[in-house]
Amino acid sequence: MDSGNLAWYLVAGAIVLFMTPGIAFFYGGMVKAKSVVSMMMMSFGAMGLVGVLWVLYGYNMGLMSPGEGNLIPGLLGNPFADIGLSAMASADDNGTLLAVFYGATFAIATTALVSGAIADRARFGPWMLFAGIWVTLVYFPVQGWVWGFDADGTPTGWIYALGDTLGFSTTTIDYAGGTAVHINAAAAALALALVLGKRIGFAKGAHQPHNVPLTLIGVAILIVGWFGFNGGAAATAGFDGLGRIILNTFVAAAAGILGWVLVERAKDGKATSIGAGSGAIAGLVAITPACYSLTPGWSILLGVIAGAVCAFAIELKYKLGFDDSLDVVALHGIGGLIGCWFLGFFATDTGLLFSGNFEQLIVQVIASTAVAIYSFGITWLIGTGIEKTIGFRVQNADELAGVDVAQHGEDGYVLA
Amino acid sequence: MDSGNLAWYLVAGAIVLFMTPGIAFFYGGMVKAKSVVSMMMMSFGAMGLVGVLWVLYGYNMGLMSPGEGNLIPGLLGNPFADIGLSAMASADDNGTLLAVFYGATFAIATTALVSGAIADRARFGPWMLFAGIWVTLVYFPVQGWVWGFDADGTPTGWIYALGDTLGFSTTTIDYAGGTAVHINAAAAALALALVLGKRIGFAKGAHQPHNVPLTLIGVAILIVGWFGFNGGAAATAGFDGLGRIILNTFVAAAAGILGWVLVERAKDGKATSIGAGSGAIAGLVAITPACYSLTPGWSILLGVIAGAVCAFAIELKYKLGFDDSLDVVALHGIGGLIGCWFLGFFATDTGLLFSGNFEQLIVQVIASTAVAIYSFGITWLIGTGIEKTIGFRVQNADELAGVDVAQHGEDGYVLA
Amino acid sequence: MDSGNLAWYLVAGAIVLFMTPGIAFFYGGMVKAKSVVSMMMMSFGAMGLVGVLWVLYGYNMGLMSPGEGNLIPGLLGNPFADIGLSAMASADDNGTLLAVFYGATFAIATTALVSGAIADRARFGPWMLFAGIWVTLVYFPVQGWVWGFDADGTPTGWIYALGDTLGFSTTTIDYAGGTAVHINAAAAALALALVLGKRIGFAKGAHQPHNVPLTLIGVAILIVGWFGFNGGAAATAGFDGLGRIILNTFVAAAAGILGWVLVERAKDGKATSIGAGSGAIAGLVAITPACYSLTPGWSILLGVIAGAVCAFAIELKYKLGFDDSLDVVALHGIGGLIGCWFLGFFATDTGLLFSGNFEQLIVQVIASTAVAIYSFGITWLIGTGIEKTIGFRVQNADELAGVDVAQHGEDGYVLA
Repeated sequence: MDSGNLAWYLVAGAIVLFMTPGIAFFYGGMVKAKSVVSMMMMSFGAMGLVGVLWVLYGYNMGLMSPGEGNLIPGLLGNPFADIGLSAMASADDNGTLLAVFYGATFAIATTALVSGAIADRARFGPWMLFAGIWVTLVYFPVQGWVWGFDADGTPTGWIYALGDTLGFSTTTIDYAGGTAVHINAAAAALALALVLGKRIGFAKGAHQPHNVPLTLIGVAILIVGWFGFNGGAAATAGFDGLGRIILNTFVAAAAGILGWVLVERAKDGKATSIGAGSGAIAGLVAITPACYSLTPGWSILLGVIAGAVCAFAIELKYKLGFDDSLDVVALHGIGGLIGCWFLGFFATDTGLLFSGNFEQLIVQVIASTAVAIYSFGITWLIGTGIEKTIGFRVQNADELAGVDVAQHGEDGYVLA
Repeated sequence: MDSGNLAWYLVAGAIVLFMTPGIAFFYGGMVKAKSVVSMMMMSFGAMGLVGVLWVLYGYNMGLMSPGEGNLIPGLLGNPFADIGLSAMASADDNGTLLAVFYGATFAIATTALVSGAIADRARFGPWMLFAGIWVTLVYFPVQGWVWGFDADGTPTGWIYALGDTLGFSTTTIDYAGGTAVHINAAAAALALALVLGKRIGFAKGAHQPHNVPLTLIGVAILIVGWFGFNGGAAATAGFDGLGRIILNTFVAAAAGILGWVLVERAKDGKATSIGAGSGAIAGLVAITPACYSLTPGWSILLGVIAGAVCAFAIELKYKLGFDDSLDVVALHGIGGLIGCWFLGFFATDTGLLFSGNFEQLIVQVIASTAVAIYSFGITWLIGTGIEKTIGFRVQNADELAGVDVAQHGEDGYVLA
Repeated sequence: MDSGNLAWYLVAGAIVLFMTPGIAFFYGGMVKAKSVVSMMMMSFGAMGLVGVLWVLYGYNMGLMSPGEGNLIPGLLGNPFADIGLSAMASADDNGTLLAVFYGATFAIATTALVSGAIADRARFGPWMLFAGIWVTLVYFPVQGWVWGFDADGTPTGWIYALGDTLGFSTTTIDYAGGTAVHINAAAAALALALVLGKRIGFAKGAHQPHNVPLTLIGVAILIVGWFGFNGGAAATAGFDGLGRIILNTFVAAAAGILGWVLVERAKDGKATSIGAGSGAIAGLVAITPACYSLTPGWSILLGVIAGAVCAFAIELKYKLGFDDSLDVVALHGIGGLIGCWFLGFFATDTGLLFSGNFEQLIVQVIASTAVAIYSFGITWLIGTGIEKTIGFRVQNADELAGVDVAQHGEDGYVLA
């Protein structure tokens, strides 16, 4: 990596780290005023805990283990390979150390995303316990499935190797985390929403955002950070595809806004700002796996589809009766699946439209389904374990009064 | 472009894109609480629509047409040259693809700026229609007048070629958009303010900002983004002048704060935070065309003048009776003119002070006046066309009750 | 400096400049709603004034004087060496011009930090006067003590030369400003808190944050900006240590969050969001001098210690009876000392643990103590001078009614 690559890699990591407060504000503005502290604290708490765990042993688990063999080839690195990364620090390679930083920001953001499912009703201590166990058992291994590489650049994770395993001429495309981040977080969110159960009075229209500007501040930060999220890895590959990645990311976000607000307009007669923000996120989620492998024109189509479909998908929770409070499933699950599967059809060269075969689609479906099932299952076990022992959900009285004072002793606002 | 150039070009684009939410918050905090959603949505809506249009055909209109000749040499590229930029994507040149991204962020921000003129009283659908027509007929061509270049680097826009056309030894200086962005947006804002008419109860002191911190969050984002705005293009020129551009941009912002608050202090006895923020913007607007062509000392003077003069210029709308609600004319019009014309006197080498002749001043005046007239005229036609057909302005009852609920079905805040 | 170095240097400066609004929001959210404008204006005002003064003569005072000898070798450069930096601008070296920009952002942020001590009760005009005198007499020289270098790279400031002076085999380590920025600002804050005296009704629990999300927006900006703060100087050294600096900075912030909220949990039973944000800042302050000279493992320990100790240190002001309103002393003073002195024990190679001698600890203690004493003393004189002449503190009636209307004629919020 030359100095220009390093400069962008560093900045990419910094703006991806910025995304976690972005999630805190995006989520925080959408809950009621008496839960805003709790909502934001789940993100900031994750930043503290996951950041430390990643450096202690998480990076080592990602099939990149420096100095030691992996525990289970293709599945699990060795957490004890270089505790605290002292050996790596001695080697003093800027690129490797920045890769640790960059990877940390993904681990934190993914964990923070999950919290959107359990707004207004989660205890903070159990959330932190959950966050620590969840990244360890779910995120740390899963990200290795997708992004694990040997020192010589050979992929070591089963997802990236899946095409080879099946004898295909292509392999799974998940450039920046459609499976590892978005589908993963969404499956975990669904599991946790089921474990904690619905909020008291859960119903369509019962939960209004308390601070729309705060949510849009979060959206703004997320949009900017996403360029680092999707484009950072190009720094490790001599900027291969960088311009395409960035332009596709941008235009999918723009198209996502249009897709969502057009559906709102058709459905409800009015476009909302929460919708515009959510549409941008939906477009960005969908382009995440696909940013390297589409032309700008297909990216516009993907963004519009993601925005439009997710605008309908947010109704699912009311129909199916699960309280995924801030729509992690609709945005990151449905949006992530749309992006992953879209590649099966329209990926440059290998999609059905260009290759005439289903290989790309098959690996995309297998990879996304496997991650969803694994994440859902393990998350359900962790969440249930916590709920049945120390308890995850607050007392009803605290939920009704607002979790902020009960859990944190803080009022979000003292304006009078 | 080497990897360091690309790294900065990308980041510059990302932080300029960040400016549009910055405009949303800067504007959003200054309107009343019942219009904040509407105000922000005009920016976020522009991001969606203009972003998509730019990739579809807008970039092609800017006299940079890849693969096809321009429709009207010096004035208009061919929008159909490479619809959706597939040909460009195939060529896969990072620099060119990032140039599209970078250009998109300017188109979006310029459109968003215009919305400041029509706070509290615009319908969202007509705004989106306006935004689409306006960028197509005004921004897309005008930016080509200034920044159009052939593949071999020859300027193709009439503004940049103006000096040559007149047989001068210098030509128009508009490094980062004094004419194409600020004067353009301000002229459009004035036209739209006239088309929509004054708010009910329009009077000095009648319209207080509802959320000062939100406005200052916008200012903070705008300040940071402006380094990308003014400095990004240096990435395409081997960083020629980069340090000077950045230092001048910085110090003009700082000086703009001082200029504005000193005038407030003298005039009203008190410096305001809205004034400090506006002063920074005024200084930044003025340095936008000039950032490459001044020394830091002259940049301080320019910033102080811009801050001070614009602090007086915000009174104009009350005296002349047009409701440019958030002072797009005073900040971006007067500030932009100050910056453009200042160069006629103090531009390094070519300004009157250094060259002893008026050539620089003449081209600066012609370019800025031409853009102002073109933008004002076309905008007035578009705005009037919309107002007379589908209607642009909300019903009086909705304006009095607040446009947010009427137009978007949302309350900006639910704090109790 | 190559183009990648320049790209990062520029971005580093831009995000450090972003930190000053970050301070404005971090501080602004913690005061009462009727002081938020005043609190933010002290930061934005500093940006205007200090920015201009730095370019006019401040950079010259920092023992980097281009073209002229220093006034007092090791202590003070020549402010009149290149007024307005015209000579430097003519030389047109991107690296040098960006160094001026980068340095300006530090001067501004340090000044803004001081304002946290005098929340709710300071007059704006006297604050601006103070800011101008303080940077001139305190910050401009002190930063030269640490970071002054000749054109050929020889250190010119006494702090950096201290090891040599004492005949040690190591010298003071203050990579990014533990002494020059944090201890400096904290000592000044303490002096100013004493000069202005306690707020009416000063007592533990009497001063609740009025807007927690605003404070966390500030924290988010500060976290991101800190990568520029700690990592920017590596751009001038071929990225030597860059990856280590960034990773250490990151993980110390994360560990600081954990340290602080664990102490809160143990002490009060509840973790707060203000605590999480403050913990991140404490970890970042402590890693500031140390980011180059530790491994990630020691950085975690440093961050945890800083977060935990500072969580106790905020009680000091109630016990000792000084109203350092927003805990500049506890966060930046104690946090800064922890970072500086920690190096005496654990700095790679030279700390007591690795070298077996006390040389590193001795120079760290001397440097930090000297800066604290100098800054406290001069600040007390400046503050007292202003208070006794034109008056620094507002009238009691204005303090009780809220300084915003009295000082700025603005209400922070008009929500109804």
